[in-house]
Amino acid sequence: MSDVKKVVLAYSGGLDTSVIVKWLQETYNCEVVTFTADIGQGEEVEPARAKAQALGVKEIYIEDLREEFVRDYVFPMFRANTIYEGEYLLGTSIARPLIAKRLIEIANETGADAISHGATGKGNDQVRFELGGYALKPGVKVIAPWREWDLTSREKLMAYCEEHNIPVDFSNKKKKSPYSMDANLLHISYEGGILEDPWAEAEDDMWRWSVSPEAAPDTPTYVELTFEKGDIVAIDGEALKAHEVLEKLNKVGGDNGIGRLDIVENRYVGMKSRGCYETPGGTIMLRAHRAIESLTLDREEAHLKDQLMPKYAEVIYNGYWWSPERRMLQAAIDETQKNVSGVVRMKLYKGNATVVGRKSEQSLFDESIATFEDDAGAYNQKDAEGFIKLNALRLRIAAGKGRQQS
Amino acid sequence: MSDVKKVVLAYSGGLDTSVIVKWLQETYNCEVVTFTADIGQGEEVEPARAKAQALGVKEIYIEDLREEFVRDYVFPMFRANTIYEGEYLLGTSIARPLIAKRLIEIANETGADAISHGATGKGNDQVRFELGGYALKPGVKVIAPWREWDLTSREKLMAYCEEHNIPVDFSNKKKKSPYSMDANLLHISYEGGILEDPWAEAEDDMWRWSVSPEAAPDTPTYVELTFEKGDIVAIDGEALKAHEVLEKLNKVGGDNGIGRLDIVENRYVGMKSRGCYETPGGTIMLRAHRAIESLTLDREEAHLKDQLMPKYAEVIYNGYWWSPERRMLQAAIDETQKNVSGVVRMKLYKGNATVVGRKSEQSLFDESIATFEDDAGAYNQKDAEGFIKLNALRLRIAAGKGRQQS
Amino acid sequence: MSDVKKVVLAYSGGLDTSVIVKWLQETYNCEVVTFTADIGQGEEVEPARAKAQALGVKEIYIEDLREEFVRDYVFPMFRANTIYEGEYLLGTSIARPLIAKRLIEIANETGADAISHGATGKGNDQVRFELGGYALKPGVKVIAPWREWDLTSREKLMAYCEEHNIPVDFSNKKKKSPYSMDANLLHISYEGGILEDPWAEAEDDMWRWSVSPEAAPDTPTYVELTFEKGDIVAIDGEALKAHEVLEKLNKVGGDNGIGRLDIVENRYVGMKSRGCYETPGGTIMLRAHRAIESLTLDREEAHLKDQLMPKYAEVIYNGYWWSPERRMLQAAIDETQKNVSGVVRMKLYKGNATVVGRKSEQSLFDESIATFEDDAGAYNQKDAEGFIKLNALRLRIAAGKGRQQS
Amino acid sequence: MSDVKKVVLAYSGGLDTSVIVKWLQETYNCEVVTFTADIGQGEEVEPARAKAQALGVKEIYIEDLREEFVRDYVFPMFRANTIYEGEYLLGTSIARPLIAKRLIEIANETGADAISHGATGKGNDQVRFELGGYALKPGVKVIAPWREWDLTSREKLMAYCEEHNIPVDFSNKKKKSPYSMDANLLHISYEGGILEDPWAEAEDDMWRWSVSPEAAPDTPTYVELTFEKGDIVAIDGEALKAHEVLEKLNKVGGDNGIGRLDIVENRYVGMKSRGCYETPGGTIMLRAHRAIESLTLDREEAHLKDQLMPKYAEVIYNGYWWSPERRMLQAAIDETQKNVSGVVRMKLYKGNATVVGRKSEQSLFDESIATFEDDAGAYNQKDAEGFIKLNALRLRIAAGKGRQQS
Repeated sequence: MSDVKKVVLAYSGGLDTSVIVKWLQETYNCEVVTFTADIGQGEEVEPARAKAQALGVKEIYIEDLREEFVRDYVFPMFRANTIYEGEYLLGTSIARPLIAKRLIEIANETGADAISHGATGKGNDQVRFELGGYALKPGVKVIAPWREWDLTSREKLMAYCEEHNIPVDFSNKKKKSPYSMDANLLHISYEGGILEDPWAEAEDDMWRWSVSPEAAPDTPTYVELTFEKGDIVAIDGEALKAHEVLEKLNKVGGDNGIGRLDIVENRYVGMKSRGCYETPGGTIMLRAHRAIESLTLDREEAHLKDQLMPKYAEVIYNGYWWSPERRMLQAAIDETQKNVSGVVRMKLYKGNATVVGRKSEQSLFDESIATFEDDAGAYNQKDAEGFIKLNALRLRIAAGKGRQQS
Repeated sequence: MSDVKKVVLAYSGGLDTSVIVKWLQETYNCEVVTFTADIGQGEEVEPARAKAQALGVKEIYIEDLREEFVRDYVFPMFRANTIYEGEYLLGTSIARPLIAKRLIEIANETGADAISHGATGKGNDQVRFELGGYALKPGVKVIAPWREWDLTSREKLMAYCEEHNIPVDFSNKKKKSPYSMDANLLHISYEGGILEDPWAEAEDDMWRWSVSPEAAPDTPTYVELTFEKGDIVAIDGEALKAHEVLEKLNKVGGDNGIGRLDIVENRYVGMKSRGCYETPGGTIMLRAHRAIESLTLDREEAHLKDQLMPKYAEVIYNGYWWSPERRMLQAAIDETQKNVSGVVRMKLYKGNATVVGRKSEQSLFDESIATFEDDAGAYNQKDAEGFIKLNALRLRIAAGKGRQQS
Repeated sequence: MSDVKKVVLAYSGGLDTSVIVKWLQETYNCEVVTFTADIGQGEEVEPARAKAQALGVKEIYIEDLREEFVRDYVFPMFRANTIYEGEYLLGTSIARPLIAKRLIEIANETGADAISHGATGKGNDQVRFELGGYALKPGVKVIAPWREWDLTSREKLMAYCEEHNIPVDFSNKKKKSPYSMDANLLHISYEGGILEDPWAEAEDDMWRWSVSPEAAPDTPTYVELTFEKGDIVAIDGEALKAHEVLEKLNKVGGDNGIGRLDIVENRYVGMKSRGCYETPGGTIMLRAHRAIESLTLDREEAHLKDQLMPKYAEVIYNGYWWSPERRMLQAAIDETQKNVSGVVRMKLYKGNATVVGRKSEQSLFDESIATFEDDAGAYNQKDAEGFIKLNALRLRIAAGKGRQQS
Repeated sequence: MSDVKKVVLAYSGGLDTSVIVKWLQETYNCEVVTFTADIGQGEEVEPARAKAQALGVKEIYIEDLREEFVRDYVFPMFRANTIYEGEYLLGTSIARPLIAKRLIEIANETGADAISHGATGKGNDQVRFELGGYALKPGVKVIAPWREWDLTSREKLMAYCEEHNIPVDFSNKKKKSPYSMDANLLHISYEGGILEDPWAEAEDDMWRWSVSPEAAPDTPTYVELTFEKGDIVAIDGEALKAHEVLEKLNKVGGDNGIGRLDIVENRYVGMKSRGCYETPGGTIMLRAHRAIESLTLDREEAHLKDQLMPKYAEVIYNGYWWSPERRMLQAAIDETQKNVSGVVRMKLYKGNATVVGRKSEQSLFDESIATFEDDAGAYNQKDAEGFIKLNALRLRIAAGKGRQQS
């Protein structure tokens, strides 16, 4: 374990990663560089500086990555209407590639030969961090303390803190929650505690980002979302940066009780787990994006996107953002978004995010053809006969030969 | 046009299909057999008998197909979590194959050589009726009056009625609505009128099956849905037939403002159209089915189902229920449903159908492995290192050779 | 039929299209522009000029499109290892989009409002020409004489020629063959005649571009093909243009009895047909391209390409080259070809095109890892245990719960 | 290591697995049960008995599994026209599930708590054996000596033999070959040696099952293969068992130089490797199966099969035969094979396996429709206009709105 000289740690400033700083210093006898990022988790990142200093860290990186996160990761993912297993909007998954990338870049800047993280050996996040790390710096050493050490209970962690003089007030906040949580601009997640019984309903005071539908206002809120090439660029006519879009939608969505989700999902490491998520802005974005696509995408590209999406979601969920297959899928997806521009009007009300209107200069909706009224010859109904006849030909031939018909 | 001797008509009893009866008799100088089915559209079917008799029809079929419809068409489709273009639950599409099948069976019983329907030349329904017809009786003659006649406006239809002594009160009810509507146990649909402008919000008095979320009760309703091999067999512990399940869920869903949908969709004939749908029961079923699958399906079969679903939805939407590709996909889907049994608990509240619990004797959720607490060795976290290392190997090799990394 | 003023005809110079010139002039009372292209069919195109002039055509386009055809259509298609229904290399399909594009461009240049072609109403080519035409000029009028006229037998055509003074020697050459043939740089095809019985073996004198394996040389020929970004750019070290590559491979392939194919295929219009094809160069290219990809593509992008290929082939076969779905798929495919560079060595011998070596500076083959000998720690075999354990986890959990195991 | 009481070993009788017997006995101090199967590898299995006895083994299983192997594994796989990465017929992959199943069954019969195999830690076979083992007996202990021991060179193995009195003549035969080989009724494979350089051509004396095309007879051999529901049941009219079919086709194929393959493939463990394969019978079967399907399958089910095949191949290659996703795909595949019956005539000549005729009572080829001659109205060419017009509609609308056209 002596061959690690310097390690860059994804440092939250919380108890667990503070213990890791110390443990890395002791176990590997190496220098630790901390990296703390604001990706919209809703907690100050600056306090991490003093904590790291107190632990003897000399190189401390604290960064605001909110815009990069939303613009380069969240938005590209939403262009595909990405959902994992029919429900999950991938809020945790999509933040990991950016963290992995910065860990490696900082390793390169500081001459570190290793990276480390605080994810457990049971979850998906270790995979996402490490696949990203290996893809971007193939010779990097990865240290995953939770897979190595014997601090396998809260008691042992506390004992370690006491022994090593790590101030435990670090952990106060977290201790109040019985849940394992993760947050960024796209979502906040909850696991563990009573959620480990999939039959048990989540307690209402667990949720942090949204009011319950019951507690939401009795009158609806309407928003108009302007898309350009598949991304939202303005809300109610006001131009916004990517992360501002999401912040604003999180606010208005959360206020209206939108975006709560309670699911059992399949982890890449092979087990099922139960998680609850709040994704207020993402829930609105997904619906709105589908709506603007419904006007502006060709049918066949839309269907092909739908067929590719589950694979794309799996790639991201499993941690392969930095992979050739993700780039390949992204190329296909982005190719379709050139004309995905226009405005979607949504009604937000007590948990419901409902599309009530959409318009676009790129619209392929042709009222003169679709109309039930006289279309002045725009569409020749007689064409339908030949269309049906030839589409039926293979079925008729088969039936004529006595093939199974029902 | 003299070569048709007898034609079986899908007869609703309404104005349009009454005109068609007369028009067929006159134009083709043939006998007309009427077929009217109760598939849960919410209107009496028995009155169609007197109307048909008044038009001189001798062979009149009036049938209650509700159970067959839900059991053999709706339920199999829901096993795949089927959604068209991310939103549409295929309420109209799934009723057509059954109608087509009965038209052909009645043609065989009555010695008819043709079938007819009242669908327009612009829509999907003509395709669905006719593909079904041809697949089940390859030599059948199909008559689609809307593609043939010149009664292209309401005025001309009325004039035809007067001229041929068809009582126009037939049409009273429909005339009240500016929308083209279609209903069965799975849904009611609305097209036309102001909906032809996709920016215009649907008027609240258009909706017929559900109250608005605003008008729904202020307290939630909980239901427990029991699944067996992928289908719901009981609600709140009460065993029900398939169509009773859907009736009951429509009622409780509609009462709670659930299942309204407003979309622009791509028709098989090549145009976009805007439609509004109410699918209260189906909306609940879909969510619940995903929830019971989340406990009982293996990850890889679940993902494969998700990848196949858009194709399966397209097959049904386009009218290919009676096709080898649908049977092939169904075989794959049904193979996965053997263990999809258990109970899902849902909370219905002002438009929201939320899963709050799920349990199953077939559950693959293993709390002893998933737990954040001590798992007593059920899962060896060290396995994750090798898992990640080998999954990363191809990425590391590529990066080591200088391949693009971001 | 009086509303067509000028029509651009895909004119081969043969009997059928010569009749079409006259028939268009007479039937539509319009001006005819002829367009004749050399796409490597192996017949002189210049003679078409005099024939067109003799028919009174004033605007005559004769063009050498061989390079454009191979570079912009054949090569992009081969990047996907495209095969239709497991066997067919799409030789006819891939030539149609280019013809359609030039027809429309010439229509735009000459102010023509219609295009016309000599394809029958039973085949795929009409679809390919017309879909291309409509996609590139939505208001164009398409005239498909074979679907309109009553010249439905050779006798009637001959009578028409005599009546209209069209020199029948035009047809001498074709008359010698009992087959319907089509040729371009990628292939020559045969349909009809005794091939209409799928049990009947093709006669040996039908084949025109290749010797039989029996007649091929008794010693093998070796070629080295240099790829750059997925396309062949040199043969045996000699840099060549795209169409020269294909010409050369056709020659050496045909000389060695390579590329004959005899299949029953499914046409887009709904029927099965039997066709024989000679694709000497294409057969070599496909194998070689797979070989260079086997060294240079990442596994997952390679597998994804394989999964998308059948759809891509279907899109091209059905005539949707000029469609958003083709562009979307092409974007994905081209994204993967950036590193598909290197050299493939092939042995050609009596019908066999065998890869015997491949090398690349972009190779991802890592001998130090793959070796059966001592790898000096490049690969840690112990990683495999964790890899297998976690991949097995879902299966073990299911088996532990008594799930079906075989 | 003391917790293993009895282990079932996949025992070939060769040097490596003989060493493993001794090593297991020593290292785990446990009883070893040997299992040796004839799956058509072309070597006597009975001699393994004496060798095992000499090593002190008391429970010795020697079985002829050839029929089960071909009937229940090879044939189902060929129904899907399964090819991995465009080239490989999965000869090794498909034999592993059967071995794994018998290992587990024997473990259950003999009360063993572990299984063991002689596959290395770098290859796919370890994965296939172990995934199968875990899927069929979730609590089984798997011992993979090559991942555990330090006998990492031939010299160390020899020293171990000497030390433990294991007769080295066991290894004589294998020592003659510089290649790592594996064989069963479907194929024989070669890896290692000079093949580790992908540019080097395989030496001609490496190949064991087939003559070179050059050495094959100068006159072709014709065979007629009778299919029933997707499987070959007779050759030249003679009814045969599944394994007899493959034996016979291997003979006639090998005699005609058919089935040699030289590829670089992507292993599941993340590296590329170069392998050479001889699959004479399989190569013929694949072609023939496609041919009988070309007559008897509907177009859309055929295309869907082609789209699913790469996934199905990956599932088998990666070792997931005993998985829900394989069963799901198999259900879809088998559903399509009900009518895949008939006769295919093939010409075998110097490496070429060419389809020259196919016939079937289930044929969907309709000569009366497909004919270039007068079809007596079986097909109405005018239908094609409407077919094309409506298929073009979406493209025309898009072009009319100024969308990108090329």
